[in-house]
Amino acid sequence: MSTSASASPDERHHVVIIGSGFGGLFAARALKRAPVRVTLIDRTNHHLFQPLLYQVATGILSEGQIAPPTRDVLRKHRHLRVLLAEVERIDLQTKVVHADEFGESLDIGYDSLIIAGGATSSYFGHDEFRDWSCAMKSLDDALALRGDIFGSFELAEASRDADERERLMTFVVVGGGPTGVEMAGQLKELSRRALRNNYRRIDPRDTRVVLVEGTDHLVNFMGRRLSKMTERDLTRMGVEVHLSAMVTDMDEDGVQITHADDSTERILAATKIWAAGTRGASLGSTLARDAGADMDKVGRLVVNPDCSLPGHPEVFVVGDLMALDDLPGLAEVAIQSGVHAAHTIVRRQEGKQPKDFHYRDLGTLATISRFRAVAKIGPIQVGGFVGWVLWLVVHITFLTGFKNRLGALARWTVSFVGRGRYERALTGPWVARRQRRPKAA
Amino acid sequence: MSTSASASPDERHHVVIIGSGFGGLFAARALKRAPVRVTLIDRTNHHLFQPLLYQVATGILSEGQIAPPTRDVLRKHRHLRVLLAEVERIDLQTKVVHADEFGESLDIGYDSLIIAGGATSSYFGHDEFRDWSCAMKSLDDALALRGDIFGSFELAEASRDADERERLMTFVVVGGGPTGVEMAGQLKELSRRALRNNYRRIDPRDTRVVLVEGTDHLVNFMGRRLSKMTERDLTRMGVEVHLSAMVTDMDEDGVQITHADDSTERILAATKIWAAGTRGASLGSTLARDAGADMDKVGRLVVNPDCSLPGHPEVFVVGDLMALDDLPGLAEVAIQSGVHAAHTIVRRQEGKQPKDFHYRDLGTLATISRFRAVAKIGPIQVGGFVGWVLWLVVHITFLTGFKNRLGALARWTVSFVGRGRYERALTGPWVARRQRRPKAA
Repeated sequence: MSTSASASPDERHHVVIIGSGFGGLFAARALKRAPVRVTLIDRTNHHLFQPLLYQVATGILSEGQIAPPTRDVLRKHRHLRVLLAEVERIDLQTKVVHADEFGESLDIGYDSLIIAGGATSSYFGHDEFRDWSCAMKSLDDALALRGDIFGSFELAEASRDADERERLMTFVVVGGGPTGVEMAGQLKELSRRALRNNYRRIDPRDTRVVLVEGTDHLVNFMGRRLSKMTERDLTRMGVEVHLSAMVTDMDEDGVQITHADDSTERILAATKIWAAGTRGASLGSTLARDAGADMDKVGRLVVNPDCSLPGHPEVFVVGDLMALDDLPGLAEVAIQSGVHAAHTIVRRQEGKQPKDFHYRDLGTLATISRFRAVAKIGPIQVGGFVGWVLWLVVHITFLTGFKNRLGALARWTVSFVGRGRYERALTGPWVARRQRRPKAA
Repeated sequence: MSTSASASPDERHHVVIIGSGFGGLFAARALKRAPVRVTLIDRTNHHLFQPLLYQVATGILSEGQIAPPTRDVLRKHRHLRVLLAEVERIDLQTKVVHADEFGESLDIGYDSLIIAGGATSSYFGHDEFRDWSCAMKSLDDALALRGDIFGSFELAEASRDADERERLMTFVVVGGGPTGVEMAGQLKELSRRALRNNYRRIDPRDTRVVLVEGTDHLVNFMGRRLSKMTERDLTRMGVEVHLSAMVTDMDEDGVQITHADDSTERILAATKIWAAGTRGASLGSTLARDAGADMDKVGRLVVNPDCSLPGHPEVFVVGDLMALDDLPGLAEVAIQSGVHAAHTIVRRQEGKQPKDFHYRDLGTLATISRFRAVAKIGPIQVGGFVGWVLWLVVHITFLTGFKNRLGALARWTVSFVGRGRYERALTGPWVARRQRRPKAA
C-alpha cells in the first residue's frame, strides 16, 4: 500500500527525515528553500529541547516551553509534511520506510533518507534498573520524574517513620555528565530555596543528593579544570559526589554503589535518576539486523565521513545515532550533522560532490546552580557567574521560537531571582505511578 | 489513633478546613492572624483557579499557572499545616474528621470545621455519559481534555476516511454557562488561528463546534441582554448554538440532541465536553446519610444564614457545597462565604454573636473570544472589547500569587495578540487514554 503523498503529482525529490529532535528538525529547516519535498516522521508531536529536560523535571519550565509542536515550528515549509507515526523498519533496497500511524501501516518511499533517531538510555546490562529509576530522555520521563520529586516530599511529610522520611528525601543521580550535574544542582536548589517553609514535619533542607559517576571526573569532555570547578561547586552546595563509583544494584528501596577499591555502599533512596549511559535508538539495531549496517559498541551506526551510510549514499545518519570520529551525543553535534546531511542532498541534486562533515565545536556548557555554570568555548574555560551568563545567552538563543524564549526568560527570572517553581501540581500520572508501586506509597 | 498534631502542646482553638478551592483557601487566609491553629485538608496538592481551567484544556496556560501548591501559597501561616489526604467521613458528635493519608487512616479532631468540598459533575441521571465525555472540574480533567483536543487533530490528519475526519473535528460542548461558552469560543479560536497552516490533509478551519444548552438562553445569571450578546458573538464566530436542547444520548461516536419540540438530532463527534450540571461533592451525601444533614436537590447542604450547619454552630459549609439563598456556584460566592465562616469563628472566640452571610455581587464575567467578553458589574452590563478588558483586569487581580499573574499575562499576550498556544505536547496520559478507547484510535 502506498501513502497518498507518494501518489501526489508533486514529483520533487523526496527527502524522508526520521526524528524531530535537533538532528531531524535542523535538517528539515536547512531544506526549507531546497527543490525537494520533505516528510518528517516522529512518534511524538513535538520537538524536544532535551538539554532543558531537567528544568521540566524540577518544575521551572512547563512541558510546552521545551516541546513546541513540530507542525507549528515547520508550518511555513510548504513542501513539508509531518507524520505522527512510529518507524518500524527501513528497506534500504526498495527505499521504503515502513511505519505505524495510529495502528495503520504506512509505507513511505524516499529518494533520500535522513535517520535522526536519537538515543535511548542504556543500563550497562542491568535492564532491571529501568524499573526503579527515572530516565531523562523524553518529555514523559521528565513529567514522571517531576511527579516523583514533588510527590516524595509529600510522602515524607505524611510519613510517621523517620527512616522512611530520610529514604524519601534522598535522591541518587547516576551519571556525572551535564544532565546529571544539572539535575543534582537543581535538586539542591529546590530543597534549599524553593520548598522553604512549605512543610511542617520535614525540613526540605535535610534533602540528600548523591551524584554517582563511573569515571574519575565530572562533565568529562570539558577538561580537568572545569571538571574540578564543577565538583567543588557541587560539593559546596552539599551534593555528595562519588567519583570512580558504579551503581551495581538497584531496587525499590535504594541503590548499591561499588567504589574503585571494590568496597560497596548501600544508599536508601526513593528516587533514582538515570543520567548515565545512552545507546543508539533501536532503529540502529534494526538496520544492523536487516541490512547488515555496522554498529559501534553503544549501538550507533557507523557512517562515512559525509554522514552517509556505507553503500547507501542516499541514506544519512545524524545526531546521537551516528558513530563518527567519536563525536559526543550533544545537541550541537546533532544540529550540525543534520544540516550537513541536508546540504549534501542539495549538493547531489546540483550535481556537486559531497563534502566531509567537520564538527565545529562551538562550546559546551552546564549550569550548577543559579548564577553558577561552567562553560568551555574554544580555548576559553570559565566558571561561576560568567559561565552562567554564557549559559543563559546560549540557551535563550537556541530555544525554538520567540515565544518560548520570552517565556523561559520569565520563568528563569521567577526561579533564579525569586524562589518559585511554577510547575508543582501533582496530577494523574503521579497517582497512577504510585499505585503501580505499592510500597513507595 | 490520633494524629500527631492533636497531641501537640499547641492548645489553640483548632480549625479544620476541608478543601483548598476558593472557599477553603480564602477561609485559611482570613485566619492568618487569628488566635487559632488551622489544618487544611485536600486530596490534591494545589489550589485550583477553576475559572481558567478551559485555558489549560486549550493549551494557553500551563497547569502550574492555575494550580499553585497550597503549601506554598500558605507557607507564611505559622499555625497552619496542609494535609494531602482524602476525607472519608466526618463524625459531628465526637468532632473528628476521618481521612485517608496515602493509605493510612488519620483522625483529626476539630473545635471548628469549615467544609469547602466543592462540586462535582452531574449527568442528570445519565452517569454513562461520564465515560464518553470530558468533565471540567479538576486539573486532570483539563489535561485529559487537552490531550483529546490536540490529539483529535492529529488523528484527523492521519485518517484516510473523510467521515471519520469530520467526526474527529467535531466538538460538542454541553452546557451554556461561563465554562461552556468560554470553551466553545476557545475551540473556534484555536481552529481558526492557532492551528493555521499546521496540517496538510485537514484544514482546522473546518472544525465544527456545537454548544448545547438546556434553557432558552446562555450565561443564565447574566440577564437577557448579555445572554443575547453572547449568543450573537458565538454564532458570528461559527459556533452552532442549540438552545432549549438536551443531550439525551451519548456514545463513543457522538451525541443525540433532543430539541424543545421533541425532535432529535444525532451529531457525530469524537470529543464531548461536559460543562452542564454540577452537584455538591459526595461529602455532602455522606453527611446527609451519617448525620441527617439536609441536602437540596443538587446535593448541596442546607445551612443557616451564618453558613453554619443546623444544630452544629461549630460546623460551616461554604462555596459550591453550600445551599443558601440559591446562590450560584461561582468563585466569588465561595470566597465570600469562606471568609465569612472564618470571621464567624473568630467572632465566637471573642464572645461576639455571629452575623448572617450576605453575598455582595461584585459582578460576573465570561470571555467569548480574544478581545470580546461579557461582563455584568452591578447595574453595568457591557460586552465586546470593554467587557474583555474588564475580564482581563479581574482575572489578573484574582490569580493567586504575583508570579502567576505575570506569567498568565505573558501567555495571554502570546495567545491573544500572537497566535501561539504553548501547551500542545501530547504526553503519556493521552496515549494511555487512546489505548483505553480502541475505536477512537
